[in-house]
Amino acid sequence: MTEAIKPSDLTGSLRQPVNVRLAADGLSVRILDQTQLPNRTVYLDLSLPEQQYEAIAKLRVRGAPAIGIFAAMAYAVAAARSQQTDPAAFIAELAQFSAYLNRSRPTAVNLSWALRRMQAFTVARQTASRPQLLAQIRQEAEQIQQEDIAMCRAIAQFGLSLLHDGDTVLTHCNAGPLATSLYGTALGPVLLAQEQQRHLKVFADETRPLLQGARLTAYELQQAGVEVTLICDNMAGLVMKQGLVQACLVGCDRVAANGDAANKIGTSQVAVLAHYYHIPFYVLGPGSTIDMNCPDGDHIVIEERSGEEIRSLYYREPMAPQGIHFYNPAFDVTDHNLITAVITEKGIIRPPFKQELARWFA
Amino acid sequence: MTEAIKPSDLTGSLRQPVNVRLAADGLSVRILDQTQLPNRTVYLDLSLPEQQYEAIAKLRVRGAPAIGIFAAMAYAVAAARSQQTDPAAFIAELAQFSAYLNRSRPTAVNLSWALRRMQAFTVARQTASRPQLLAQIRQEAEQIQQEDIAMCRAIAQFGLSLLHDGDTVLTHCNAGPLATSLYGTALGPVLLAQEQQRHLKVFADETRPLLQGARLTAYELQQAGVEVTLICDNMAGLVMKQGLVQACLVGCDRVAANGDAANKIGTSQVAVLAHYYHIPFYVLGPGSTIDMNCPDGDHIVIEERSGEEIRSLYYREPMAPQGIHFYNPAFDVTDHNLITAVITEKGIIRPPFKQELARWFA
Repeated sequence: MTEAIKPSDLTGSLRQPVNVRLAADGLSVRILDQTQLPNRTVYLDLSLPEQQYEAIAKLRVRGAPAIGIFAAMAYAVAAARSQQTDPAAFIAELAQFSAYLNRSRPTAVNLSWALRRMQAFTVARQTASRPQLLAQIRQEAEQIQQEDIAMCRAIAQFGLSLLHDGDTVLTHCNAGPLATSLYGTALGPVLLAQEQQRHLKVFADETRPLLQGARLTAYELQQAGVEVTLICDNMAGLVMKQGLVQACLVGCDRVAANGDAANKIGTSQVAVLAHYYHIPFYVLGPGSTIDMNCPDGDHIVIEERSGEEIRSLYYREPMAPQGIHFYNPAFDVTDHNLITAVITEKGIIRPPFKQELARWFA
Repeated sequence: MTEAIKPSDLTGSLRQPVNVRLAADGLSVRILDQTQLPNRTVYLDLSLPEQQYEAIAKLRVRGAPAIGIFAAMAYAVAAARSQQTDPAAFIAELAQFSAYLNRSRPTAVNLSWALRRMQAFTVARQTASRPQLLAQIRQEAEQIQQEDIAMCRAIAQFGLSLLHDGDTVLTHCNAGPLATSLYGTALGPVLLAQEQQRHLKVFADETRPLLQGARLTAYELQQAGVEVTLICDNMAGLVMKQGLVQACLVGCDRVAANGDAANKIGTSQVAVLAHYYHIPFYVLGPGSTIDMNCPDGDHIVIEERSGEEIRSLYYREPMAPQGIHFYNPAFDVTDHNLITAVITEKGIIRPPFKQELARWFA
């Protein structure tokens, strides 16, 4: 089930996704186990529903778009492995599979979206011959990944148009290829520039407490050959003050109709710092994260997680006393008046956000 | 040499210093080993110069005022243990001891200051009988600690006068009793309020990469019975945005003549956030940290430390890839225009800082 590879095997990571791939025989999905990064580059070949469920639940595959792609490919594997010859029984088995996998991470919108799309696709073609149907299902799963690549590429192009060769950008958390397909969202302009031999440099916040910046962003940028400097979250202000950064690029989990943007905890204070130091602050994400039914950031509920993530996770021994209080919000909301532009696959959206978002996404 | 005690033994920590104490027989200095906190409360009885040197060099005792107090007490121990009966030989031996201990942490100003003061005191009284001289040396060492207590108490009183009962303050790094004698500087108002049954609550930044907030500030506040909530450094902005904090209190390593203040990395961005959210930002420290010979923050050199502190310190395994860049400045400078007031034992100094600091400290 596991296979260790050398980092040099990943040099193609700019040209094809390494996080999620359908095996050549279509009987398993190969993922890069993100929980083992950056210390071990381990691929897992997942053929059984239980393995696939566990991979999502344990965050071995993470990032909303990547989870959707993975689920679609897992669906294609389930179809290829089905022993049901009767079309109705085949459809029923895949419905059962979808319901099972969908429970692995209930709040992931892309997960249920991808499974619904695959099931509807199959139902619409159930009269086709089985070999033909399996080939089409497989193509559809790979199509979802290709669509994500195209979307990320469009975001990257729009983002890159705002930057200059040699610029250094600051990013927070991880919104790169590991979380999507290729390019990512916030890292897209950087990786596209790298592909085009136009080089950008990056300061990456380590992003406590889960260290996505240290573990994942630094890793993917290094793999792609980008010059990346890792800092602690409390150094972002100094880096800006010293004039070392020309723009901030961050991803988003949800953007309200007025432009308020929810993203990983710490994003909003990066925005305040950028505002103070007159550095443009860009939010990058797919149009699907614009939620026109959410009027503003006050309507976005912020998940609170266990204090043990702050106190003891990753450490040899706990680094804070027992019995004190912890506050561990997983996200925060950046006020729209701190955001220079929201960049989606449709284009660059600038203030006034309420009017502009309504124009593009109503 | 070591002795483990239960946390309940420390309930007297508001009334007498627990970090550095001269033994009843005057033949050793007892320190609370700060490198073992918060997991183990271990006291070390240090009687030999080599042990004392190691305790400073390895940060078992840390904080400029605490190091000065410790050095003075170590000097008293060296005097009490001396076998030299001849006054000149006795003085020479103590001079040699002072030169040796002074090398344990060359940049610590209080270390050399305390040793010079003790040696001058001894030289001035070398004709006294030995028992009388030893008693006076011991008193002088304890006097240095008492002076620090009085200074911290004055800072605490001035600071507390700016706060209201029930306020919650945010602090960064550690500027408490462990680093001084009693009260500390930034934590002084909080601990004085606690002593007076007027309760303040605290949000403590964990303060990456060395985690002084998690390891030391959370520990001392818990020991004193103060309600403390630990957050990651990237959560300070959200806590302010949510209206959970009424003031920020931080220490300082050096304040320039124009009010620019150097302190632990991350302090300056807390100040930017407080400015944006209209929260008063107070810098607390002894008058000795005001450096009227330093015109402004641009003249303060910022120490850079190893990237391994970010990548691997305290972790079970490294949390970032090898071969990337790290930027690990140990301090930053907060612009004077972000500081509401500088609080010293002399009083509360408000803008314009250049004129006001000159009036108090020229």
